[in-house]
Amino acid sequence: MLRPLEAPLRHLFGPGPSNVTPRILAAGSRPIIGHMHPEMYEIMNDIKKGIQYAFQTENNMTIAMSGSGHAAMECAVFNTVEPGESVLVAINGIWGERVAEIAERSGTSLLGLQTPYKKGRFSLIAIEKHKPVLFFLTHGESSAGLCHPVDGIGDICRKHNCLFLVDTVASLGAAPIFMDKQNIDILYSGSQKALNAPPGTAPISFNERACHKMFNRKTKPISYLFDMTHLSNYWGCDGKPARIYHHTGPVSGFFALRESLAILAEKGLEESWKKHKEVAAYLYRGLEDLGVKLFIPDRVRLPSVTTIAIPEGYQWRELLSYIMKHHQMEMTGGLGPSMDMVIRIGLMGYNCEKRNADMALNAFADALKNCKKTKA
Amino acid sequence: MLRPLEAPLRHLFGPGPSNVTPRILAAGSRPIIGHMHPEMYEIMNDIKKGIQYAFQTENNMTIAMSGSGHAAMECAVFNTVEPGESVLVAINGIWGERVAEIAERSGTSLLGLQTPYKKGRFSLIAIEKHKPVLFFLTHGESSAGLCHPVDGIGDICRKHNCLFLVDTVASLGAAPIFMDKQNIDILYSGSQKALNAPPGTAPISFNERACHKMFNRKTKPISYLFDMTHLSNYWGCDGKPARIYHHTGPVSGFFALRESLAILAEKGLEESWKKHKEVAAYLYRGLEDLGVKLFIPDRVRLPSVTTIAIPEGYQWRELLSYIMKHHQMEMTGGLGPSMDMVIRIGLMGYNCEKRNADMALNAFADALKNCKKTKA
Repeated sequence: MLRPLEAPLRHLFGPGPSNVTPRILAAGSRPIIGHMHPEMYEIMNDIKKGIQYAFQTENNMTIAMSGSGHAAMECAVFNTVEPGESVLVAINGIWGERVAEIAERSGTSLLGLQTPYKKGRFSLIAIEKHKPVLFFLTHGESSAGLCHPVDGIGDICRKHNCLFLVDTVASLGAAPIFMDKQNIDILYSGSQKALNAPPGTAPISFNERACHKMFNRKTKPISYLFDMTHLSNYWGCDGKPARIYHHTGPVSGFFALRESLAILAEKGLEESWKKHKEVAAYLYRGLEDLGVKLFIPDRVRLPSVTTIAIPEGYQWRELLSYIMKHHQMEMTGGLGPSMDMVIRIGLMGYNCEKRNADMALNAFADALKNCKKTKA
Repeated sequence: MLRPLEAPLRHLFGPGPSNVTPRILAAGSRPIIGHMHPEMYEIMNDIKKGIQYAFQTENNMTIAMSGSGHAAMECAVFNTVEPGESVLVAINGIWGERVAEIAERSGTSLLGLQTPYKKGRFSLIAIEKHKPVLFFLTHGESSAGLCHPVDGIGDICRKHNCLFLVDTVASLGAAPIFMDKQNIDILYSGSQKALNAPPGTAPISFNERACHKMFNRKTKPISYLFDMTHLSNYWGCDGKPARIYHHTGPVSGFFALRESLAILAEKGLEESWKKHKEVAAYLYRGLEDLGVKLFIPDRVRLPSVTTIAIPEGYQWRELLSYIMKHHQMEMTGGLGPSMDMVIRIGLMGYNCEKRNADMALNAFADALKNCKKTKA
């Protein structure tokens, strides 16, 4: 404790957090102001506008959580579902598992919809059959490296009076998502992926259908901290003249998030999507040239996080340790259902450059050359 | 959005957040590393040691929440209480009200113990009578400016098989607290008061009695994010060899918290307590010289946050606006039950200096001179 703080410089080429840009680090290190000063409300308004742009939505009920993606996940479930109601969760990786766990703890009647990896589609007949109040889908499945198609699902949900909740933590800014056009009722993301802000804040937006459901509950949401009645007031979204103290938001985290959203707005979404697609394609070619196999078919690959099937004869832990030790570079193994199946490389936002893909490819080739290979 | 981030320099002399020291701002702006890198675990170990020192405890189950004081509050209640169990809450200001609200949402049978301001004591006969599983008390009541005595209460709780939960958000580092000696079973604090870190992290510690209760539940805690089974693993407190991914902690926030705890350890608790007491006494004298009345009797005053009875004939909002406009200085009004009753001045940690007390007194005198006074 009585020695200086140590934190090495690293290439964070895993599934996140990714490297934070110097401009965002600088924003996060500014002297703070009070969480309820008028200037802070201006910054929160900027964040709101930035999220509306990134989500492609005009929803008024658009805020950032004082917490990571899991806080947004719990906020979405806690506010829109009441005990005894039915929730349908598409499980195409770890995030579906997590939402299922959260929904179950909330006393809902849970239906898990197992969706096989590599397919990126499943039958939505369960929505018609079970009439859940909420259907969850992960758009950017970082544990699988899957970008799940979203088109058309919102319409089916609407037809059956079900809210459509989508997780875009790993895909925001990297793969197109259009909250309003795609009839997504609740969308959330994280700060530490393609937005390149430090972890600890999470954009979330609710449309009018979602607001109608969550503000006409019979019971209070289980969490006071994540209660949207209070959060909507804190963020000036409830139309009331005064904001009442609810909790103290992460002022520095909001400075950083504001700046990261400003950078995305300056660059433009189209440009950001294009860049991720190009650099990902470049990485795929490089990996295939090394003779390794990609885990997910091209059609549904997530451009921000690439999953590689573990090369035959290698121990994935050994490859990753080698890359960390010799290249100060993070790549990671699988997570949840993809554990022991894949190695993951993430090139997101600021990190999404061909020169970084080259560095990652070079490190990976070096590891393949120098790590022990057992006979397959 | 497409303009630079604006945040003015302010003297944050309200009840928090307080100004962040340059050294802590610098720590929080370092390039981040992964939330599960070995170097991050070292930093988390430092945080754990720093909290153990600040709390005066040897509890192994000592971590920082990825959220502000409210996250710690919900974590404490969610993990130690099951639906149907009985909770007793001492309400000596807003924080008791908040815990009561949280406990009620958790489906507990709630008993509120109204404790009059200015007394700093109440009868604990309710513990004997109702046998709650948890008794909550705020040590540093920032809305009232009260530092509630804690001695002896832990023993009574222990005798009646009740856990003793204490909020020390506003008092940690400013007024003595001895978690182990005072038989406090669960203690939590915040980062943004006398620790002078940005808001967004919150120290919390559980002793063995609390662990026994929370790890022998029949039901899972309602929140996955705040589930201590997972958080204890993330923080390496559960004795298991591997840490499994739970959520992504606020890496920059932990850098900053680590540094703030290091500063407290370098300075020493005794020295910090002494300094707060001296500067507070100096502020009291100065305020009395201005002819204003302090709200809380000397015996139970909180050294970090001083409450002033609103001077007769003045509008508190006008005084505070004047001070903000002409001195770029935050003082605040009351909160919750103390609303419209007090003005609050906080001089915490880095801000706790006689020169700052002089500045605050000067600004307050200036406001009294220049703001409209109606005939009393």
